[in-house]
Amino acid sequence: MSVAGRVVLLVGGVGGAKLACGLARILPPEALTIVVNTADDFRHLGLHVSPDLDTVMYTLADLANPETGWGVAGDSFRAMEMLAGYDGPTWFRLGDVDLATHLARTAWLDEGLTLTQVTARLCERLGIRHTLLPVTDDPLATRLDTDEGELTFQVYFVARGWQPVVRAVRYVGADQAHIGAGVARVLEEAGLIVLGPSNPVLSIDPILAVPGVRERIIANSAPCVAISPIIGGRAVRGPAAKLMAELGMDVSPAGIARHYGDLLSGIILDEEDRALADAIEAVGVRAFARRTLMLTDKDKVNLAQALLTWAEGVAT
Amino acid sequence: MSVAGRVVLLVGGVGGAKLACGLARILPPEALTIVVNTADDFRHLGLHVSPDLDTVMYTLADLANPETGWGVAGDSFRAMEMLAGYDGPTWFRLGDVDLATHLARTAWLDEGLTLTQVTARLCERLGIRHTLLPVTDDPLATRLDTDEGELTFQVYFVARGWQPVVRAVRYVGADQAHIGAGVARVLEEAGLIVLGPSNPVLSIDPILAVPGVRERIIANSAPCVAISPIIGGRAVRGPAAKLMAELGMDVSPAGIARHYGDLLSGIILDEEDRALADAIEAVGVRAFARRTLMLTDKDKVNLAQALLTWAEGVAT
Repeated sequence: MSVAGRVVLLVGGVGGAKLACGLARILPPEALTIVVNTADDFRHLGLHVSPDLDTVMYTLADLANPETGWGVAGDSFRAMEMLAGYDGPTWFRLGDVDLATHLARTAWLDEGLTLTQVTARLCERLGIRHTLLPVTDDPLATRLDTDEGELTFQVYFVARGWQPVVRAVRYVGADQAHIGAGVARVLEEAGLIVLGPSNPVLSIDPILAVPGVRERIIANSAPCVAISPIIGGRAVRGPAAKLMAELGMDVSPAGIARHYGDLLSGIILDEEDRALADAIEAVGVRAFARRTLMLTDKDKVNLAQALLTWAEGVAT
Repeated sequence: MSVAGRVVLLVGGVGGAKLACGLARILPPEALTIVVNTADDFRHLGLHVSPDLDTVMYTLADLANPETGWGVAGDSFRAMEMLAGYDGPTWFRLGDVDLATHLARTAWLDEGLTLTQVTARLCERLGIRHTLLPVTDDPLATRLDTDEGELTFQVYFVARGWQPVVRAVRYVGADQAHIGAGVARVLEEAGLIVLGPSNPVLSIDPILAVPGVRERIIANSAPCVAISPIIGGRAVRGPAAKLMAELGMDVSPAGIARHYGDLLSGIILDEEDRALADAIEAVGVRAFARRTLMLTDKDKVNLAQALLTWAEGVAT
């Protein structure tokens, strides 16, 4: 650990969760806060599902299914099998154990707790000592204008397997959303802000779209560094590369750096993209090329440690 | 089968479901309609749970857990175990397979289907050929004034194990509830109306409280017969005897007959209560004493057959 002050990591789902896991192995609870995208959240079959919060939570609790990236390892699907027997909506698969998370969240939200409070309670009971914060307690929902018309996020992502061609992305509710009280504070006090290796458009941008997030990152003199989710022109997983291309972005770490613009002090790109480092530095963003793929726990910790060490240099 | 015209059975949960099962073995689908209490329904953990509809449905589909009387035989409870790990609300236990019923129902209600339509869809997909009808598609909820204050039905029944002393029972929403279109029609056309061996106050009365139900039973010249859920001063299961005593009712088939009053043409009481038959007949209600306990499938069919044969006599 090299950074002075709290590290704040902004993330979406799987890639961000892996980095969160690496950082959580190195940093004590008071030195790391993970701010999570909630624009994928939706009410499904009566339940409030928060896919990104769950992925990060299950990953930190060592419950995550490593094969799918979502859900709980070793979960069963008896409810889904019966639901299929009913010809019910099974396109979003909820495991039996996983269902408990949505049942508890829905019950507590219905009791009047905020999503922040519900998340804290779930994390505490899973033994997670680091703080997870939804970016906002208010409704926030990604909508995509596609060649199949306007789609909600989960229909685009899960039901349609991100095959529709995207023309534009909106974050419904962002204008009215209030930044979480804890989020505002940790962004103001952060010694390092990290934009995780998550989809920039679908995971990080909705966080940045909540009024007050971007402003606080800029107002804070601490470095803000990103980890590129693009390696060699491809996404490590998911639709990042396809979507960036459809939106006319440069599908490379340089495109990521340009996308985040003046928010960014530095970017970690994969060693495979080393040749792009100079071009990125030329526009005033520090660039650090190293292995970024996180396949093992060791990869996660190594990337997290490299990030913290390098960020100290960016800060000076 | 002896009765001319359709048999309409009014029921709550387990006892009524057993008789429904017996009748369904004898009568073809077009000759039997089962009208089910919905005043136990509640929204729980985000889901619309209809305990009585489910018990009847699972029983007719041969899925019911014979040991508990609720839920699905051989179900697992992985969701509930995880929910317990969250210190979540587990007092109302929902099995993993059973959860699918509530998930499907909630999804379809949220899509705008009525409870009647949802019930038909669930039944069809479980291979149930007889018609199950919720008494109403409108909100209806039993509330109990007890020595612990006012309690909702499920808190009284499940969370508190029907231990509170009941002073009064109300059916919230009954005044505004509309009788289901199918319910109105089958009650008008019925050749026999049967009040199942269910709790008179908690299962049958809320059905009768929906405007138009009682009126149609009276207007229909076909016999209306009850099966006493009380045998030898005790309920076969559940709080019927305790509750009747607390409400100052006579805990016997005679008390049941008086409770239903002029609705009733006849009552089947258990052979153990044979001595009460004359007193019941003296007030103008035909009484038939025979074994009423339904432990085996054969018991159910035998009681159903005896009911149909005897009811023909009542009708004349």
